[in-house]
Amino acid sequence: MNSILILHGPNLNLLGEREPEIYGEKTLKEINEFLISLGLELGLEVRTYQSNHEGDLVDTLQNACSWSKGAVVNAAAYTHTSIALHDTIAAVHFPVIEVHISNPYSRETFRHNSLISSVCRGTITGFGWRSYELAIRALAHIIENN
Amino acid sequence: MNSILILHGPNLNLLGEREPEIYGEKTLKEINEFLISLGLELGLEVRTYQSNHEGDLVDTLQNACSWSKGAVVNAAAYTHTSIALHDTIAAVHFPVIEVHISNPYSRETFRHNSLISSVCRGTITGFGWRSYELAIRALAHIIENN
Amino acid sequence: MNSILILHGPNLNLLGEREPEIYGEKTLKEINEFLISLGLELGLEVRTYQSNHEGDLVDTLQNACSWSKGAVVNAAAYTHTSIALHDTIAAVHFPVIEVHISNPYSRETFRHNSLISSVCRGTITGFGWRSYELAIRALAHIIENN
Amino acid sequence: MNSILILHGPNLNLLGEREPEIYGEKTLKEINEFLISLGLELGLEVRTYQSNHEGDLVDTLQNACSWSKGAVVNAAAYTHTSIALHDTIAAVHFPVIEVHISNPYSRETFRHNSLISSVCRGTITGFGWRSYELAIRALAHIIENN
Amino acid sequence: MNSILILHGPNLNLLGEREPEIYGEKTLKEINEFLISLGLELGLEVRTYQSNHEGDLVDTLQNACSWSKGAVVNAAAYTHTSIALHDTIAAVHFPVIEVHISNPYSRETFRHNSLISSVCRGTITGFGWRSYELAIRALAHIIENN
Amino acid sequence: MNSILILHGPNLNLLGEREPEIYGEKTLKEINEFLISLGLELGLEVRTYQSNHEGDLVDTLQNACSWSKGAVVNAAAYTHTSIALHDTIAAVHFPVIEVHISNPYSRETFRHNSLISSVCRGTITGFGWRSYELAIRALAHIIENN
Amino acid sequence: MNSILILHGPNLNLLGEREPEIYGEKTLKEINEFLISLGLELGLEVRTYQSNHEGDLVDTLQNACSWSKGAVVNAAAYTHTSIALHDTIAAVHFPVIEVHISNPYSRETFRHNSLISSVCRGTITGFGWRSYELAIRALAHIIENN
Amino acid sequence: MNSILILHGPNLNLLGEREPEIYGEKTLKEINEFLISLGLELGLEVRTYQSNHEGDLVDTLQNACSWSKGAVVNAAAYTHTSIALHDTIAAVHFPVIEVHISNPYSRETFRHNSLISSVCRGTITGFGWRSYELAIRALAHIIENN
Amino acid sequence: MNSILILHGPNLNLLGEREPEIYGEKTLKEINEFLISLGLELGLEVRTYQSNHEGDLVDTLQNACSWSKGAVVNAAAYTHTSIALHDTIAAVHFPVIEVHISNPYSRETFRHNSLISSVCRGTITGFGWRSYELAIRALAHIIENN
Amino acid sequence: MNSILILHGPNLNLLGEREPEIYGEKTLKEINEFLISLGLELGLEVRTYQSNHEGDLVDTLQNACSWSKGAVVNAAAYTHTSIALHDTIAAVHFPVIEVHISNPYSRETFRHNSLISSVCRGTITGFGWRSYELAIRALAHIIENN
Amino acid sequence: MNSILILHGPNLNLLGEREPEIYGEKTLKEINEFLISLGLELGLEVRTYQSNHEGDLVDTLQNACSWSKGAVVNAAAYTHTSIALHDTIAAVHFPVIEVHISNPYSRETFRHNSLISSVCRGTITGFGWRSYELAIRALAHIIENN
Amino acid sequence: MNSILILHGPNLNLLGEREPEIYGEKTLKEINEFLISLGLELGLEVRTYQSNHEGDLVDTLQNACSWSKGAVVNAAAYTHTSIALHDTIAAVHFPVIEVHISNPYSRETFRHNSLISSVCRGTITGFGWRSYELAIRALAHIIENN
Repeated sequence: MNSILILHGPNLNLLGEREPEIYGEKTLKEINEFLISLGLELGLEVRTYQSNHEGDLVDTLQNACSWSKGAVVNAAAYTHTSIALHDTIAAVHFPVIEVHISNPYSRETFRHNSLISSVCRGTITGFGWRSYELAIRALAHIIENN
Repeated sequence: MNSILILHGPNLNLLGEREPEIYGEKTLKEINEFLISLGLELGLEVRTYQSNHEGDLVDTLQNACSWSKGAVVNAAAYTHTSIALHDTIAAVHFPVIEVHISNPYSRETFRHNSLISSVCRGTITGFGWRSYELAIRALAHIIENN
Repeated sequence: MNSILILHGPNLNLLGEREPEIYGEKTLKEINEFLISLGLELGLEVRTYQSNHEGDLVDTLQNACSWSKGAVVNAAAYTHTSIALHDTIAAVHFPVIEVHISNPYSRETFRHNSLISSVCRGTITGFGWRSYELAIRALAHIIENN
Repeated sequence: MNSILILHGPNLNLLGEREPEIYGEKTLKEINEFLISLGLELGLEVRTYQSNHEGDLVDTLQNACSWSKGAVVNAAAYTHTSIALHDTIAAVHFPVIEVHISNPYSRETFRHNSLISSVCRGTITGFGWRSYELAIRALAHIIENN
Repeated sequence: MNSILILHGPNLNLLGEREPEIYGEKTLKEINEFLISLGLELGLEVRTYQSNHEGDLVDTLQNACSWSKGAVVNAAAYTHTSIALHDTIAAVHFPVIEVHISNPYSRETFRHNSLISSVCRGTITGFGWRSYELAIRALAHIIENN
Repeated sequence: MNSILILHGPNLNLLGEREPEIYGEKTLKEINEFLISLGLELGLEVRTYQSNHEGDLVDTLQNACSWSKGAVVNAAAYTHTSIALHDTIAAVHFPVIEVHISNPYSRETFRHNSLISSVCRGTITGFGWRSYELAIRALAHIIENN
Repeated sequence: MNSILILHGPNLNLLGEREPEIYGEKTLKEINEFLISLGLELGLEVRTYQSNHEGDLVDTLQNACSWSKGAVVNAAAYTHTSIALHDTIAAVHFPVIEVHISNPYSRETFRHNSLISSVCRGTITGFGWRSYELAIRALAHIIENN
Repeated sequence: MNSILILHGPNLNLLGEREPEIYGEKTLKEINEFLISLGLELGLEVRTYQSNHEGDLVDTLQNACSWSKGAVVNAAAYTHTSIALHDTIAAVHFPVIEVHISNPYSRETFRHNSLISSVCRGTITGFGWRSYELAIRALAHIIENN
Repeated sequence: MNSILILHGPNLNLLGEREPEIYGEKTLKEINEFLISLGLELGLEVRTYQSNHEGDLVDTLQNACSWSKGAVVNAAAYTHTSIALHDTIAAVHFPVIEVHISNPYSRETFRHNSLISSVCRGTITGFGWRSYELAIRALAHIIENN
Repeated sequence: MNSILILHGPNLNLLGEREPEIYGEKTLKEINEFLISLGLELGLEVRTYQSNHEGDLVDTLQNACSWSKGAVVNAAAYTHTSIALHDTIAAVHFPVIEVHISNPYSRETFRHNSLISSVCRGTITGFGWRSYELAIRALAHIIENN
Repeated sequence: MNSILILHGPNLNLLGEREPEIYGEKTLKEINEFLISLGLELGLEVRTYQSNHEGDLVDTLQNACSWSKGAVVNAAAYTHTSIALHDTIAAVHFPVIEVHISNPYSRETFRHNSLISSVCRGTITGFGWRSYELAIRALAHIIENN
Repeated sequence: MNSILILHGPNLNLLGEREPEIYGEKTLKEINEFLISLGLELGLEVRTYQSNHEGDLVDTLQNACSWSKGAVVNAAAYTHTSIALHDTIAAVHFPVIEVHISNPYSRETFRHNSLISSVCRGTITGFGWRSYELAIRALAHIIENN
């Protein structure tokens, strides 16, 4: 069975606990559980990781090279500030899909620019936690057709 | 059965005929047929429309208010220049999803800014013609849960 | 009797139907009827036209050269993107007045710049549908004194 | 009888004396007299004030709170530099209309930005001294309908 | 005999009728007749088309793929705002030459940037209607040497 | 007993009367009285002055050189536009502390830049009228330790 | 007794050891001790934490939700680059006060913009280590009045 | 005997008293006396005026129309912020010369832009109080040759 | 026989020797010979000059005033940096045509701005060495019709 | 024997494994071994450290104060985003040399700006892993001459 | 007798011959003769030099170190583009005064920025050829008082 | 024996004579002699050239194609303004290394951008005259390994 990585960036551990009107009511644990089941249905082992540390996200993505066939990355705030993540995504050999829970374009200007979009295979934003679901489906398809 | 609109912007009628290395090898006709079948599977009547005219896109989206439950819009070049489309999407009462075949962020700078993202429910870019498929699935889900 | 043109740009056909808190509750038809009566009072034949097509607005303004003594133009979204309209207004021989229903300066930044102001005789913004009334009164005065 | 304030900003005391090709041939005194008569016709007591001092304009507008139902403000040069006036207009409880004699958009770039438009009810520019006339008519209407 | 397209953008139908000091005294009809004769001399069938509609220009250029060996495009105002035309020129398989009657660099700043230059074979500006003549000669040469 | 100046800029005379949700419910008179008592507690004679005139603020600050040991300045709107005040603060020989009642960074962009911060000893913003209290305590400490 | 968090960002562990002419001569340890005593006087348990890691600052601030009534944050260099911290401060339910030891406005341009000011209750800059003292006093007051 | 006006802007009343290393050691009174004598030598009555109020500078310059043949203006801080002064200088009928004591280009960036240079006859900067002397000589020459 | 100047800027002496895929395979000598023959056909004496020195280009253009009826200038790199050449072209009394071998708009951003276009009669870019041919033909026509 | 630190930033642990056409074929381990030998030749103990964590780089550089005479820093992606590293380099008492393997100026625009150059002694870029060699030689020389 | 250098930049050799409405009717030769006589009156040997070559201006200014006590520089177009001249003026040990014949601020935007002002003692612009006269008088005074 | 060119740009002939605190105390002659000896040690004939003329630098670099294996270029002020040099470096077939004596990033903003870095093999800045030494060593290595 192929494995994939779901990477959650800073403050996403607070999902479901704070500002539910923006980020929805599901906790990160509930979302992860849903995504793991969805993966099983699609024949994929889904491993999830969350960190508030830019360096941890880089480490985890680099290490995934030894076991993963692809990654879904919600870099949250680091989307707009991390050239380090840009460089890691450009360096790893598997496809990476960028997701966002809310629509960055309807929020502050400093969220309108993504430093990682240009090296991701595709981007899915604005569908709440279902952005992850769509990304896993897309990734499953890409892995299948490689 | 609920109906939805798939709106294709300028030059998308050339899909499959020109620059297949960027836009893929399927023609617009083939993509539309696939999306119509997919719609049927999901219990949706899918109607498609393509135009190179900004005004036609505005007219069609306005008129869809009388029969449609949602729309998937690939505004192509008008994504970056049409405030008129922005205003129409803000005015219609159904959810609109923005799609792009390629990843605008890995292309020219003038494609990095979308004038319609802020009024769309969500955005899906970079998955080739499968961007449309993901968008219809997302839209089906949104319509169901409304 | 002198004739004048009232030109309505994209999405103004939705007036009164959508977002009444921004654009007011009168429909475009009601506004046009009021403006036609007002014209009669002032000794002016008022002809109205609405289109969502930039090219139609250019065509109509050009054609008005054969019968019109002046024009009131609410270019809506095209105000901020159409150099074509700028060029037409610069080319026609009659006075043109720019109107807006709402105040563009209290809305999004991309509405703060007008490409047509510099070639219009004057600008009236923010008075709801009464912006048109004021513009017709101003135009009547200009035509009279020419 | 309701009262309103007409506020004239810096250098407008020179109207009719200098650069008549830009600002017209009527003196400020003549314009004020015309506006006072017009007010009487419309059932409004019109009080006028001119100053070259930003602080005087702020003081006068603040003091008008005790007697005025609305104001017409031609802030002239301070339109483009005075956040203080912006704050005063935002603070007073009556409607304020911005006017300009000439069309700022066909002049120097530093006149293209207005710091007060966003807090005014509406804006009228480019009709010479008749910009004031239109503004008083608009204000009369707003006061009536409040 | 090879055929080529001469495409005229918005407001160029007014040539010779308005602002002759900028655009010259020849009408568009006279220019077209001259260019057709010139084409015959050079062994080229010249077909001309003018529209004020961005979408028409895109349609016409796309359709020319079935019969034309090259095009001369004066996109006028759309030069500075139309990414749609940029995309069409990039997609068609024949050489396109950009022309302008006047020199955009000695006019308003918003005319200094061309969105289509980067995908045209060459650009000719400032020679009045003779810009077209030079462009046809250049195009004839390119077609001959292909 | 040492004396200090509290300088209030434009529109602050309206404190407590207008927009209490932004500026709080205390009037300027009440705040001044509180600050004078606080000063007495700390062994400082507090003198207060408010003006809507940039020139008055400059004059007052210059004159304070003859009697004051320091100043607390809320320049309000002039914070963002007055190089004259910047120059005065740079020229006087006593410490100046900048205060703001609300947080300029959570308001309009034109309030994000302060022209006087660079020449003030420190800045205190966002604590309502208590910003003044904190500033006086800080100033008392600085004067003591000079 | 209520508890509060004092959070020190990168390089602040060097306080008192390097560049005392800018940052003062007290070490971080001495400052922390002073603040703890001050807290006791004001009836607050003060807990302090310093890290050079952006992720640690985010973690610590998130964790404080379980025990703290407020926080004083000197984000140092991360003030100008961390959207992650911005998001954390926006997400926590207690008041946060931004402090700086020196005056960022009299230093390099890249220190003039704060990414966290807009979500902090207030800001205190330029008073050396006493900026913290003022912030604790302000926080004590806010907690008391909640 | 012809008369001219020497107009000194904000903070110039502090000349000779503060920051002599930048502005020199002569007081404004001494400079004025020197300039008056110099004027007498050149056959000019020199009248001097200083104010910290933008409006006073505008008033004074306007009033000089009734008696003056020219003006030397050191607008100090208002040089960079006053469109009102720009408009007054453009409106008066006599030649105006801009002077500065120090060299604005070797100071802060916000002093590099002059709003009045474009409407002054000439500019003299950097020669200390002798900038005034040179300006009076230049003005004398211009008046003579008119 | 009328004479004209062909002026070649920096690095154009390397034509045909380096980077032929960009600049073509003809050497500058071969191009010059072709242009001289072409000139003879058109009844023009063509004189050519190349220099890598901005000052030489200015000198040569100035000196041509004594013998030339027009000039064709390929300023190469100086196109984007030389205000001196702009001033010379503005000062000479004969028509100047700007040419470029490649299309600057499809190259680096710093080549998108021309400092000389605004003072040239017209511009021809992108046709390889035939840009010169077209320019000479255009110049011949202009000289004839003067 | 003097000791120096070689600090490698994010993603440099991937050297030699990925994108060898950009970063060369040597692994980081091989480069470090070479640099250690080179150090011995030059009489320097070379200690190396790599981390993907901004905070680790700051910590390591701070700690080196107790044992190091200088540092060579390749901050990779953090070069362009880390003010924290800028502040640490400014605070440590030993010389720091900035190196890059590739030439940032021939890559994406966001790599053209270095936040640490201004506080480094010198910069060496573009020589592949030999950039480190040159930097150690330069550092050896600086330490010797201190 | 002290000697000074008058340095004239590109195109100033055309003075009096072209565009007299901007640059006046005196030729450079006449101006130089006048300045030499003026120098004699003031006890200064005036040597003049003109070149269209940036390098010549740098050479001449460097060489003047061996014989000159000061320089008056009209760098013309190089004012706005030559960092080389900036560096030379910063390096020479004598005072340099910048002059301009016309007022750069009332001309094109690219003439509003001077690269040399910051290293010149003072600047004199807009007085026609008399700008030089004023500059020599100022320089004489500076040399005298050194 | 291989030969290389050392090219010194404007004002570098003043090395050692002026501003030794910035540029060091060695004269250009002394540096050149050192570099020639160093070359001999490394088996390279070093030829040096200095000019204040942009065109001379271009000429010399072009001519070096006939005899040189590489070049070390300190373009000084032209680094920031010369696209001509950029084009020459791009055109020559040998490797070019950019050097600077001081660190441009710790100087004026206009020195932060290099127009030649993108076409140089590598860049070395900030090591005083030893920047040249490091560059020659690097170049020797590159030539050896070609």
